[in-house]
Amino acid sequence: MKIYDWPTGPYPARVRIALAEKNLLSGVEFVPVNLWKGEQRKADFLAKNYSGTLPVLELEDGTCLAECTAITVYLDALVGEPTLTGRTPLEKGVIHMMTKRAEIEMLDAISVYFHNATPGLGPDVERDQNREWGLRQRDRALRGMHYFDAVLRKQPFIAGDAFSMADIAVIGGFIFASAVKLPVPQECEALLA
Amino acid sequence: MKIYDWPTGPYPARVRIALAEKNLLSGVEFVPVNLWKGEQRKADFLAKNYSGTLPVLELEDGTCLAECTAITVYLDALVGEPTLTGRTPLEKGVIHMMTKRAEIEMLDAISVYFHNATPGLGPDVERDQNREWGLRQRDRALRGMHYFDAVLRKQPFIAGDAFSMADIAVIGGFIFASAVKLPVPQECEALLA
Repeated sequence: MKIYDWPTGPYPARVRIALAEKNLLSGVEFVPVNLWKGEQRKADFLAKNYSGTLPVLELEDGTCLAECTAITVYLDALVGEPTLTGRTPLEKGVIHMMTKRAEIEMLDAISVYFHNATPGLGPDVERDQNREWGLRQRDRALRGMHYFDAVLRKQPFIAGDAFSMADIAVIGGFIFASAVKLPVPQECEALLA
Repeated sequence: MKIYDWPTGPYPARVRIALAEKNLLSGVEFVPVNLWKGEQRKADFLAKNYSGTLPVLELEDGTCLAECTAITVYLDALVGEPTLTGRTPLEKGVIHMMTKRAEIEMLDAISVYFHNATPGLGPDVERDQNREWGLRQRDRALRGMHYFDAVLRKQPFIAGDAFSMADIAVIGGFIFASAVKLPVPQECEALLA
């Protein structure tokens, strides 16, 4: 399989971590899509992923899978162990909930901040910034870090007792936070640990 | 099980449709959370769902599941037929991708438009509107409708040959579009059909 991504991207990191967990990295050909040149918005890439986001997994028959959660669900169904999306109905539900929460309350919020209230990918790519919305999402991400810190004070992993796709989404948040110099607050000791 | 929701809400509709498909409606107690009074932002509800969104499914032991996709994954794993989230790895991946795409390119975009560029839930609830961002999301939703129309010109359902969670997400988009008077463009004949 092929993965279209960009080596330092926070979302690509989520799928690379999932591939490593499933011991599938060696079977993947990585194809770089240069975010800083806006290649993800060009027609040939949009034909693979309408939303113009990375990463995209392309199968031998040309089928393209976008969205980190969808790719992880696919990989997890393909190879049994270790499970990243849960075994019981409740585990599956909680992992999906916490993954989505990690996106909307931390990772996606940092992304919107980056693209709207910082220079982002530069003036050629960031054409319609909305600084006020970006700053609001930055504050949301900081609140989110406190929330996930509180979660990790009660349990070892984001969705309970085992490492899952939800932890990977939070790690994606760390990577993006570091890239935009939005440090996890020092008082978030459990999250930092 | 209990579902906290609001009867006319587009996101609640997604879970109600999933419950109906799984023939589980009769076992559910629905508890109204009045969106127009901002009850979803009060502390006792936020303890059930940090993100303050509807719907939330509460199990007998008090465990709360938020996020439509997570609730649907749970219900689908609980009761086998009809499947809403796919059987094979590829079906699962495509259904998750198209569900997320229906959210970001249509349903969530309409929601952001509603809350930011229309009176939304009224001045007491909508305290920090961002009209420019809301209008941009409205335009994104209109583009999304054309995209999903193109999808349905090639295949009978949003994620392929069978009805799934992804179709339900698009139906949620229709419900919200109708509520905010953002009609599906007439040329989107396959989507309208």
